[in-house]
Amino acid sequence: MLIAEPLQRAIDELSKLPSIGKKTAQRLALHILKSDENSVNALLQALSDLKTKIKFCSECFNLSVEEKCDICKSPKRDHSMICVVEEVSDVIAIEKTNEYNGLYHVLGGVLNPLANITPENLHIKELISRIEKGGVNEVILALNPDTEGDTTSLYLLKILKEYPIKISRIARGLPIGGDLEFADPATIGRAFLGRITL
Amino acid sequence: MLIAEPLQRAIDELSKLPSIGKKTAQRLALHILKSDENSVNALLQALSDLKTKIKFCSECFNLSVEEKCDICKSPKRDHSMICVVEEVSDVIAIEKTNEYNGLYHVLGGVLNPLANITPENLHIKELISRIEKGGVNEVILALNPDTEGDTTSLYLLKILKEYPIKISRIARGLPIGGDLEFADPATIGRAFLGRITL
Repeated sequence: MLIAEPLQRAIDELSKLPSIGKKTAQRLALHILKSDENSVNALLQALSDLKTKIKFCSECFNLSVEEKCDICKSPKRDHSMICVVEEVSDVIAIEKTNEYNGLYHVLGGVLNPLANITPENLHIKELISRIEKGGVNEVILALNPDTEGDTTSLYLLKILKEYPIKISRIARGLPIGGDLEFADPATIGRAFLGRITL
Repeated sequence: MLIAEPLQRAIDELSKLPSIGKKTAQRLALHILKSDENSVNALLQALSDLKTKIKFCSECFNLSVEEKCDICKSPKRDHSMICVVEEVSDVIAIEKTNEYNGLYHVLGGVLNPLANITPENLHIKELISRIEKGGVNEVILALNPDTEGDTTSLYLLKILKEYPIKISRIARGLPIGGDLEFADPATIGRAFLGRITL
């Protein structure tokens, strides 16, 4: 098979990205090849800026252009609440809801002994020092509802109990628009355990 | 919602690509952000080379790094056969089969009066001049089996009939691994019309 080398290389590089297979990579490469120069340059510039201009917020480890991220700097946010999440993508997901107005703390993962991820690999001591600095009234644990997330939540709870702050965990139950008939037993069980009096 | 500007811009640019929605764009941008610098540079270099290093073969309008593409230059290929296709992606698809050893001619589209694509917009006169140069014994029409492809095939047939060459069209019928029960009537009809004596 004779494919021009730059095209083959672009297909190979694109198919290294998550959820991009060989066929999609080929379609993308041919699309880029046909696009006008300005839009290709805009794409290349955006991807290159992504790598060079973005760093992590020194306070909460969210993505930031400056030393502190826009959320940590904002006077409109409630600085007495910290929501602990696993990854930057979780911050984006929560921000999209417009339901939360406090600050964040991105752990950078969850405890996972099998993958050699111990408390030292996560931004846990930075969370503690934020709490020790004072001004924090509530820490909301918003880790994923899976084994690693639960283990990490329990670990954090054990440490955070030492401080005179409220510690909460986001609710578990049936997803909005979900159907009881098709929900898994674990979710239904949790929904019963977490029922609230009306 | 407060997302770092370079991240938002990368998501916007990535989601302009075909088959990439906002969610996939976000996953890709976060993946690129986490990747090491070498692999990001390799991707950026490949995409930029795609735009700067690739041009169209002066003979067949396939993609090429030099003036003539590797297929047109190859002495191992059968230079007496020309397979006419719509797009560069069709050349790749046919090359993958390893069933065809002749040359190609990429039209760059199909006739479509509604989209204002007339014979002048396609590389038809270049095909004629290749045939007039001599040495071509057979032209295989491999356009897509749809209305525009058929119209273009008929148009080409009318012109090419003037020349003392064999003109053929790739076969239509049930796809390999297909199931008669689930094939559409038009395909089954074509399979009957195109039946061969055993």
